[in-house]
Amino acid sequence: MGKTVKIGLLGCGTVGGGVIIVLNENRDDIARKAGCTIEVKTVLVRDKANLKPEIKKYNVGYTDNLDDILNDPEIDIVVELIGRVHPAKEYIEAALKHGKHVVTANKDVLAEYGKALFTLAEENHVDFQFEGAVGGGIPIIRPLRSCLAANKISSIMGIVNGTTNYMLTRMTEAGLSYENALAEAQAKGYAESDPTADVEGIDAARKITVLASLAFNTALTLKDVHIEGIDNVDACDISYARDLGYVVKLLGVAKNDPENGITANVYPVMLPKNHPLASVNDVYNAIYVNGDAVGDAMFMGRGAGRLPTASAVCGDIIDTARNICNNCCGRIKGNLFEEKKMCPPEKEMAPCYFRLLVNDRPGVLAAIASTLAAQQMSIASVIQKNVLENGLAELIIITYKVSRLSLELSMRTLQVLPVVKKVCSVLRVEDPNL
Amino acid sequence: MGKTVKIGLLGCGTVGGGVIIVLNENRDDIARKAGCTIEVKTVLVRDKANLKPEIKKYNVGYTDNLDDILNDPEIDIVVELIGRVHPAKEYIEAALKHGKHVVTANKDVLAEYGKALFTLAEENHVDFQFEGAVGGGIPIIRPLRSCLAANKISSIMGIVNGTTNYMLTRMTEAGLSYENALAEAQAKGYAESDPTADVEGIDAARKITVLASLAFNTALTLKDVHIEGIDNVDACDISYARDLGYVVKLLGVAKNDPENGITANVYPVMLPKNHPLASVNDVYNAIYVNGDAVGDAMFMGRGAGRLPTASAVCGDIIDTARNICNNCCGRIKGNLFEEKKMCPPEKEMAPCYFRLLVNDRPGVLAAIASTLAAQQMSIASVIQKNVLENGLAELIIITYKVSRLSLELSMRTLQVLPVVKKVCSVLRVEDPNL
Repeated sequence: MGKTVKIGLLGCGTVGGGVIIVLNENRDDIARKAGCTIEVKTVLVRDKANLKPEIKKYNVGYTDNLDDILNDPEIDIVVELIGRVHPAKEYIEAALKHGKHVVTANKDVLAEYGKALFTLAEENHVDFQFEGAVGGGIPIIRPLRSCLAANKISSIMGIVNGTTNYMLTRMTEAGLSYENALAEAQAKGYAESDPTADVEGIDAARKITVLASLAFNTALTLKDVHIEGIDNVDACDISYARDLGYVVKLLGVAKNDPENGITANVYPVMLPKNHPLASVNDVYNAIYVNGDAVGDAMFMGRGAGRLPTASAVCGDIIDTARNICNNCCGRIKGNLFEEKKMCPPEKEMAPCYFRLLVNDRPGVLAAIASTLAAQQMSIASVIQKNVLENGLAELIIITYKVSRLSLELSMRTLQVLPVVKKVCSVLRVEDPNL
Repeated sequence: MGKTVKIGLLGCGTVGGGVIIVLNENRDDIARKAGCTIEVKTVLVRDKANLKPEIKKYNVGYTDNLDDILNDPEIDIVVELIGRVHPAKEYIEAALKHGKHVVTANKDVLAEYGKALFTLAEENHVDFQFEGAVGGGIPIIRPLRSCLAANKISSIMGIVNGTTNYMLTRMTEAGLSYENALAEAQAKGYAESDPTADVEGIDAARKITVLASLAFNTALTLKDVHIEGIDNVDACDISYARDLGYVVKLLGVAKNDPENGITANVYPVMLPKNHPLASVNDVYNAIYVNGDAVGDAMFMGRGAGRLPTASAVCGDIIDTARNICNNCCGRIKGNLFEEKKMCPPEKEMAPCYFRLLVNDRPGVLAAIASTLAAQQMSIASVIQKNVLENGLAELIIITYKVSRLSLELSMRTLQVLPVVKKVCSVLRVEDPNL
């Protein structure tokens, strides 16, 4: 128990504060498990005056100068919790180059610069860990890199954005409109005042980038992900889904087909209501993995928040401290060694649901059906919903597996078809029977 | 990639065969992730003639003499997959004493001799890993020891026996009787011809022993677990549970209350149907953990079977190989350092459900209620079910939290009460509203 591992913490916001709390409150148990004492020595903050009282009470040092941490030979681990890409990426690089081990929860940086940072860490023989970057407190990164390392992973999908899962849960359970669900999420502090990154699926896309890269041993970036948000999902889609035995979830979905390549998507999906992901509600996240040996496995928990994310970050700190004490940093190599082969949109297949507003008169279905047939889209069912007073009707169509290319082309054609007033929404359906 | 880590495999049954398959089929990816080649060199079998053709095709050596493995300096890791306590425990001891790293999936040995084996491994500076011992392919041991290591865990509960979960699922979904559910599980190969260890909860108790020891940093053994099986659960209990909004599951439940101590139980539980464990069906297992930082987290997957368990065992092998290559074996210390303090039965509180067969006449409820009142048992609801032709009726009682002692004493009194024909079943209720 002689060694003390010292930490330089970049950022003291929600999660940074949580790390200080957890490392101090559970200090003795952590020391016994890590085999050494772990201590936050210096915290980089913009303005110490902004610190909350619940953090101020712990005995840590503060600085507004990164160099105080980089040049401190006592500091072993730099924990980056600033968030966003810049200057976090530059700070991480500087830390790695100074021979510091790095723990981060920064999905934004990883989704864009992951491979370069893994390489830099290897060159400098230091640890680079990021369990908190995806799924908050849920253990998923280490399970992928260790527990499931013997598997060829064929798919990984998950509810990886708590804001949109909360909104969809409220739309499902309380029948809220999209707007009211968003307002409620904002009022509860689950959504930011500018909710774009959440509702448009960008946050989820960053996380599926990180997960898919590890799962498929290749280096994806955010640009490889096709992204659709929930901003076009209406309360009535959720209600129709329920009638059909489905639940609507915003999923990150990545699949690796040895023949056609990798697909990485974020989009709203209709899941059969008995699918394990279908009952993951509120701000909970869950990641569902299929591997050739393990079969299906799911990891669920709180996907955000001070203490859950701090749990993951502190787990990484403990693991890194063990490596430091045993002189074996870098024992887990970056595993992005496969050549990336993305699946072309004409081979990316999924069943889908769409809702149209059409003229309620004979011949409409024939016109739509022939548009779909021209794109080799095979219809599984057509349901006419509300007939409206203005001579319009809602039409719901569910297809068997269609390619993403066919889907996009046919939707473009439908949008300009005279009998179609509007393509209201398009969702994928995750159903083995279609 | 110079080093080759060689394995001596004890046992070549279902899981042992799976390990040979996975390590060979995914050899190249595994080598890149581990940083070295991993190879099964010698397999201990009783009779090579019994080997299945799908295993025979791989190029490994066989012996019927353990010493061939123990005394082979090329063999780094001994993987014990014989099962049961003896001679597996003696083989593991011998391997550790010979300086071999040990990977096992043997819950029976761990539940009785875990602490002694951890100590022996530490003394010999070798790794001792056992991810496959609980929950088959589900990553749970490493998450507890690393990802969640910063948490104080307050409770861990899980569906950790696939046989009984399959039976309860069939009783719930198809209305099967206990006997028919058991027969079906046996026909499908999910239950052994002697199902005692599964249906009486002993298998689940071994697993919760291992989980609770790690979660609470203390050394529990099987004797610390109070065990009730599903053999008294009737189809009608499951149907009544459904009417009340519950699902019946056999759970291992361990809690650590800083004031009163540790409770460790296996028993059938009524779970609210929206609890994440309630929708874990068929042979799936799941472990639900609550920690002070992470909050609630759940891990789900296939709890048994050749390849899922091999996935976990091979994950341990890869992790051990990394440690060998980085010269840091034993980097994770045994964490059973807390003094064990078990909660006395008069302080172990849970709401419960019980079903009685009683005389259908006035005054019966008064007699029962006063028996319960004498044990400080507070009734939440009483429901009279079927009135039978022979003048008997079924009575269902749900209580608020009662101590295990009170429950046992009052059931003993009820059993001899003249108006009570039979205490048919007793289940715990996991409901925060009670």
